[in-house]
Amino acid sequence: MKLSSEIIAKITQEVIQRLDQLENLVEVEISAKHVHLSQDDIDVLFSKGYQLTFARELSQPGQFLAKERISLVGTKGTIENVAILGPARDETQVELSYTDARLLGVSTVVRNSGDITGTPGITLMANNNTIQKDTGLIIAARHIHVNSNDAQRFNVVDNEVVSVEILSQRALMFHNVLIRVSDKFQTRMHIDFDEANACGIERETVYARIVKS
Amino acid sequence: MKLSSEIIAKITQEVIQRLDQLENLVEVEISAKHVHLSQDDIDVLFSKGYQLTFARELSQPGQFLAKERISLVGTKGTIENVAILGPARDETQVELSYTDARLLGVSTVVRNSGDITGTPGITLMANNNTIQKDTGLIIAARHIHVNSNDAQRFNVVDNEVVSVEILSQRALMFHNVLIRVSDKFQTRMHIDFDEANACGIERETVYARIVKS
Repeated sequence: MKLSSEIIAKITQEVIQRLDQLENLVEVEISAKHVHLSQDDIDVLFSKGYQLTFARELSQPGQFLAKERISLVGTKGTIENVAILGPARDETQVELSYTDARLLGVSTVVRNSGDITGTPGITLMANNNTIQKDTGLIIAARHIHVNSNDAQRFNVVDNEVVSVEILSQRALMFHNVLIRVSDKFQTRMHIDFDEANACGIERETVYARIVKS
Repeated sequence: MKLSSEIIAKITQEVIQRLDQLENLVEVEISAKHVHLSQDDIDVLFSKGYQLTFARELSQPGQFLAKERISLVGTKGTIENVAILGPARDETQVELSYTDARLLGVSTVVRNSGDITGTPGITLMANNNTIQKDTGLIIAARHIHVNSNDAQRFNVVDNEVVSVEILSQRALMFHNVLIRVSDKFQTRMHIDFDEANACGIERETVYARIVKS
């Protein structure tokens, strides 16, 4: 008897959901390159007072993918059609992987989201307008959004740093994973595409187990 | 007093060499995409009896980077100027990362080097000649070449599977790392570019610590 890959996927999903209840597993999401824009930069790139257009919800409540797209311009290359996430933030932040940075020919640092002081900049183009940002380009450090209820269950607190086992084919354990707790969060781990590739994750649902460092 | 980055690198190197003696650290090398060719395929792509031209030695004794280059042709893209490693092998094997595979639009599997039965194929082009390979395309599973002397010191045997701590900025522990022992090997861990990016490694010398699973 040969099981279809769909049946195998369903059984795997069912087993893992039950393990989840026992073992405090966290679903892993892959963040592709994207940009958060300040309203000032939206004004320059699009028009004064312009509002980003909602395309679809993201896993974190209130966050959305915009219909608008943007280009990142580096010294070696340009990446077009990059996602913009809404709503507008206080400061513009561009999140790349090392692979993207190498393609663009830009220097980068691994930082927590929001911690952009002293980071490199990049040129943004949209709607035939250009902005040269002097700062705000980061490789986002891997992190876990934890809902306050799950934080109690997992026994973790905001800003704690943990290790995380990834239960995938190319299994590994990430160290230095930042916990962020809020009652507004949906519990999800976020890694970039390089990290996802290192785990051999693509479209399938993959879970992480928090390990106290 | 400000230390130059060269002095810092030298001190780091010195400290790590001493740790190495204590802690059995292994130097990590990043394998970029490359191709091993059989003599039959060299005959077709270049000419009957053609010998690859030596460009430079690689860390494993007897292995070399060839001056010749090759193109990989997928359904979505082509990657030109790919390294060929010599000498010729019994079977042609193409080693990519997930990032490369996605760019080419080819399907892939993670396999140990040499284990190519049932793997996908790819089109190779060099010297205006083309070969359609039906098999031999892999993402090389991470592994450690261990010289027989070090194997004793590390207490590992050929084909053992270990975990490995990577001592880098984006620190992590790889599981499922294959040990290969030979008295011909120089002791080195090999990972691909996705894995290197996940660790935040680029040009600097980075060490791994073997952890028994």
